[in-house]
Amino acid sequence: MNDNTCVLLKRRSEGVPVAEDFELVTRPAEQPGAGQLLCETRYLSLDPYLRGRISGRHLSGAILPGELMGGEAVCQVLESGDERFQPGDWLAAYSGWQRYPVVDADSVRTVDPGLGPVSTTLGILGMPGLTAYAGLLRLGEPKAGDTVLVSAATGPVGSMVAQIAQIKGGRAVGIAGSPDKCAWAVEQAGMAGCINYKEEDLREGVKRLCPDGVDVYFDNVGGECLQVAMENLALGARVVLCGLMAQYNTDEMPPGPNPAWVIKARATVRGMVVYDHEDLRPQFLSDASLWLKEDRIRYLEDVTEGLENAPDAFHRLMTGQNFGKALVKVS
Amino acid sequence: MNDNTCVLLKRRSEGVPVAEDFELVTRPAEQPGAGQLLCETRYLSLDPYLRGRISGRHLSGAILPGELMGGEAVCQVLESGDERFQPGDWLAAYSGWQRYPVVDADSVRTVDPGLGPVSTTLGILGMPGLTAYAGLLRLGEPKAGDTVLVSAATGPVGSMVAQIAQIKGGRAVGIAGSPDKCAWAVEQAGMAGCINYKEEDLREGVKRLCPDGVDVYFDNVGGECLQVAMENLALGARVVLCGLMAQYNTDEMPPGPNPAWVIKARATVRGMVVYDHEDLRPQFLSDASLWLKEDRIRYLEDVTEGLENAPDAFHRLMTGQNFGKALVKVS
Repeated sequence: MNDNTCVLLKRRSEGVPVAEDFELVTRPAEQPGAGQLLCETRYLSLDPYLRGRISGRHLSGAILPGELMGGEAVCQVLESGDERFQPGDWLAAYSGWQRYPVVDADSVRTVDPGLGPVSTTLGILGMPGLTAYAGLLRLGEPKAGDTVLVSAATGPVGSMVAQIAQIKGGRAVGIAGSPDKCAWAVEQAGMAGCINYKEEDLREGVKRLCPDGVDVYFDNVGGECLQVAMENLALGARVVLCGLMAQYNTDEMPPGPNPAWVIKARATVRGMVVYDHEDLRPQFLSDASLWLKEDRIRYLEDVTEGLENAPDAFHRLMTGQNFGKALVKVS
Repeated sequence: MNDNTCVLLKRRSEGVPVAEDFELVTRPAEQPGAGQLLCETRYLSLDPYLRGRISGRHLSGAILPGELMGGEAVCQVLESGDERFQPGDWLAAYSGWQRYPVVDADSVRTVDPGLGPVSTTLGILGMPGLTAYAGLLRLGEPKAGDTVLVSAATGPVGSMVAQIAQIKGGRAVGIAGSPDKCAWAVEQAGMAGCINYKEEDLREGVKRLCPDGVDVYFDNVGGECLQVAMENLALGARVVLCGLMAQYNTDEMPPGPNPAWVIKARATVRGMVVYDHEDLRPQFLSDASLWLKEDRIRYLEDVTEGLENAPDAFHRLMTGQNFGKALVKVS
């Protein structure tokens, strides 16, 4: 029997999560029962929404001190108690921060390794990619020629939003927090421009790169980015509210923009939760894997080696120090 | 030649407009040229958006000190320089606070006095009515059984929103600022309930009257009403941002609700400007005049006698002391 390395939440984080909020433990791996699968985790996904689960504020449920940290992972089956799966099969599961999860076969998502590198099933071919695809195309309703502004522009959601917008004939402008990120956004992801909000005044940057206003704003952060975007909406703009990175690390609910901006632009503002858009997943996977093979979309991964380093990697993600999709290579 | 009584803006208001911000003057009435009409104003409409014009913040343009106060009026033609109009004809024009305007025939809206009392062409059969009709039906997308919450519920927009919502099978709940207003909303306009926000805690009132959440919120005020409504949205709610009474009297732009409320409810928030919905006017007039004749909609008018009293009436409107559509009977 294998030893199952696990990372538990030790205490509720105050502000930015730190390594001391977590605890590494080793437990005997469980055996799979009927309809269950014993798996080995290959890559673990770190995502900002997990901070909301620690606070008890996320709709997918709270993670309490003493419990296994949650999150999605891409795994291979070691032992199968379900006839649909064989050892070696790839799958994605919300199996959390552990090396040898036992999961219900009915709860997993099968992964076709032919669609792209398996790690991408946690990123641009997974939940972040579907978030971008459904959020932009269904809620953002981009038209050819539209200026599409996106925050957190080199993350897995933001970079996909920008690239899908361009594939659909739009003009993407990013907001990111370092010169490297902005260079990647323009040179690799092909954005028309990218504002480094840590160096340039955000209002000036948005006016410079979106002189005719913002037709679609895809918001992953809230806070000042949302405020400035709202001030610069074009008539009839669509705003997709998807993430709140600017406030995940706090227990406060800071105020948002004045409603006058929405009225002035006759804008439509929509709230995005990816779970509502599962129906688009087959079309998304078909489109996105093709775009990936055609080299029409690029992506960045920020890979940390070893489950024991997941807390540090999560800290880096929640302070914006990651460069691309945050992953932990577990085995 | 008649003496034309006019009310000018004397100075830019600070806070709530007061009578001293305006000046009554008498000028000789002009003669109509070709394509023009000399009219006599019967009713003048007082509307909250005029406060925004005094601040220079409204999209229909600023009113500067020394200029005639603006606003829509219902008038009768005295002398016509256009073959389409005869003396005695009724029309509506943005002719401002004066008794004998001369207007371009191309700029007026003809009024059919058979559709309802002529004063209603400034209220439930006019711009406020069209605002309610287009805002609710086109942007609010109410479904049968929906709970429709509306602020400023006894005003011409709010009372029409509530009554149209009910005609379409919805359940209307109002927010208003006095026991008399709330009694009218329930007993005359047939709302399921009405919260007097000056006596009952607004959060408790909304929870009490919208126990399953708010499906459509039609906002005429912003501020605290908007905040509380956002906290109580049902899944998939629609929010129509139409008016900002809570901030018209200030030069500040106070913050709005946190974007998390929109995400949590997967809500759609839209900005409403009535000028975008002229295409609906024929259908609106046909529906609304029928509903009026069938006694399916009730309305309130707050009529002040005499143009010289328009400044005081505007002060009452901007402090919420009016009871129904604010009108000045000019002649």
